[in-house]
Amino acid sequence: MSRIDRIREKFDKLGIDVYLETYLPNIRYLTGFSGSSAFLFIGKDFSLFVSDPRYEEQSREEVKEADIFIYRKDLFECKSNLPNIKLKLGVPADYIKCSLYKKLKEELEMFDVVLIDDPVRELRMVKTEEEIGYIRESQAITDRIFEDILKIVKPGKMTELDVAAEIEYRMKKFGAEKPSFDTIVATGAHSALPHAKPRSVKVGNETPLLMDFGNYHRGYSSDMTRTVWIGENPPKKFVEIYKIVLEAQERAENEAKPGMTGKEIDALAREVIEKAGYGEYFGHSLGHGVGLEVHEYPRISSLGNDPIKPGMVFTIEPGIYLTGLFGVRIEDIVVMREDGVEKLTGSPKNLIKIF
Amino acid sequence: MSRIDRIREKFDKLGIDVYLETYLPNIRYLTGFSGSSAFLFIGKDFSLFVSDPRYEEQSREEVKEADIFIYRKDLFECKSNLPNIKLKLGVPADYIKCSLYKKLKEELEMFDVVLIDDPVRELRMVKTEEEIGYIRESQAITDRIFEDILKIVKPGKMTELDVAAEIEYRMKKFGAEKPSFDTIVATGAHSALPHAKPRSVKVGNETPLLMDFGNYHRGYSSDMTRTVWIGENPPKKFVEIYKIVLEAQERAENEAKPGMTGKEIDALAREVIEKAGYGEYFGHSLGHGVGLEVHEYPRISSLGNDPIKPGMVFTIEPGIYLTGLFGVRIEDIVVMREDGVEKLTGSPKNLIKIF
Repeated sequence: MSRIDRIREKFDKLGIDVYLETYLPNIRYLTGFSGSSAFLFIGKDFSLFVSDPRYEEQSREEVKEADIFIYRKDLFECKSNLPNIKLKLGVPADYIKCSLYKKLKEELEMFDVVLIDDPVRELRMVKTEEEIGYIRESQAITDRIFEDILKIVKPGKMTELDVAAEIEYRMKKFGAEKPSFDTIVATGAHSALPHAKPRSVKVGNETPLLMDFGNYHRGYSSDMTRTVWIGENPPKKFVEIYKIVLEAQERAENEAKPGMTGKEIDALAREVIEKAGYGEYFGHSLGHGVGLEVHEYPRISSLGNDPIKPGMVFTIEPGIYLTGLFGVRIEDIVVMREDGVEKLTGSPKNLIKIF
Repeated sequence: MSRIDRIREKFDKLGIDVYLETYLPNIRYLTGFSGSSAFLFIGKDFSLFVSDPRYEEQSREEVKEADIFIYRKDLFECKSNLPNIKLKLGVPADYIKCSLYKKLKEELEMFDVVLIDDPVRELRMVKTEEEIGYIRESQAITDRIFEDILKIVKPGKMTELDVAAEIEYRMKKFGAEKPSFDTIVATGAHSALPHAKPRSVKVGNETPLLMDFGNYHRGYSSDMTRTVWIGENPPKKFVEIYKIVLEAQERAENEAKPGMTGKEIDALAREVIEKAGYGEYFGHSLGHGVGLEVHEYPRISSLGNDPIKPGMVFTIEPGIYLTGLFGVRIEDIVVMREDGVEKLTGSPKNLIKIF
């Protein structure tokens, strides 16, 4: 059954006759279209993809399972291709802007327009083997970049920005499309900021180097974090923290099982860090879903109440951040299988020293 | 007068007592905050910036002219720091999602919540000299990259993706933050697609090479396009089209004056292309505003009815696209001054041949 048909299956439960998709990652999921301006009407017996003249050729190349309508000046020119009868049109409350919602009600006056929950989220959470393959390939590029970077970073030679430039340069060179988020490269006390921006500050000697990066490949994201030590002599405190984070990360990977909630998987790692006395220094979620977006459902956090099913892909990335000193984070991407998680990240997790 | 005060000045006309800003580029404009999660309440005698724990430290470093509230689990914890009296709260209809709007009405039940037009757009359109300076610096990086690329591109050596990787690599190396849009590198007939994606196809010999790229620097975007010829012998047709596009581009640059509308400036270039008989092959707007976003107001197109004032920064980028053959686009960034436009782009526009 096609993805669009699977949305149609939900119409009765949602109480709608037509669904209007406005969220681009969902449109890509449903039709294959990768451009930046589109709408998708799904009716019981029609589907109409709508875009503007910039995407005329690309729509015809990419869009599957929908008729294509290219408007010239105004989206609502497509009205001529929609049924002119009283139907209930559902739009996703989480994605549609108030101004467009108002305009929809005015322009599509034949429809009864209602706000509904995103019906695509549930589908997107469970990946097909094809999608898992794309994420695996995407992560393989990221792993290869990490291996390369370990060879070129030396104490005192490059700035954090240089390292980020070398990472992102290799994404396109190795066939990926682009970074899936702002690359994080942080040394010294800056590594204690979970969202550190790379600075024009030299990577020194005897300092942690935290790198968090990912790329899109065939539309699918990768995401990994490694913290390495630049120098020969990591302090005892750093080695201690590194071990705790690694133990937490591996416990979650080893003990997560299908049917556990995101909250339960989060707790597997969080308990290790709490028992070691660093609970308050792990201030973020254990992970997040990954797919056509680098952050998507399911939730892998204290708010994650849905059971994690086979086929769901997510990150496991505990961290401990000691403000003013250093931070350590270790992150893999995994896919839930029938018997536990399979890692999609290949890079080593032992403490690497570069000197 | 601060930017936040200038928003307060509009309250009477808008009929509101409090404004809630939800659009991140506007929040950056009003407070300096550059992170990815924030809300800003502006009252007549208070301003409250709200973010989550990931941005606690960054908020304290960056946010000017507002109190800071970091919520732990839920945005609406900030209610304790808002006045608990009947006030009219305006939210921007173009940016707020329906689900958040609904939640606002429920959670801030002491307020009367109404949808309004974005009051920041008008401010952001006219740049200060400081902002123009940032855009100039941002574009100087882009110009420097173009100069570099001309030296390394050779017929038959690199793919389109390689060229894009070399362009983006230099952004970070030269101090910029990141690309402000997906870099376009297109050769052969692909140059006739206005939004071409770089392919793993070698840059050949005797072919056009169209490059359209820009970067963020200090938050401000650059944007330029040049079309060069790879080889010694550009065909007559290509030289003819190049001349027409350049004439159109330069006419708009030379004849645009403050007080003209975006539509009138668009027409300056469009007339040249129409008179030459290629009007139907120039299917997009002449340009767009540039600032904290790479595409922002004012409109420089047939829909641009507002007068262009001194201090407005925008692109001038006519193109002719002959499907199956080639496309030519030439783009500068300019700032409107009292006596006409000043160019912020320094790269040459004569037809460059590389062999």
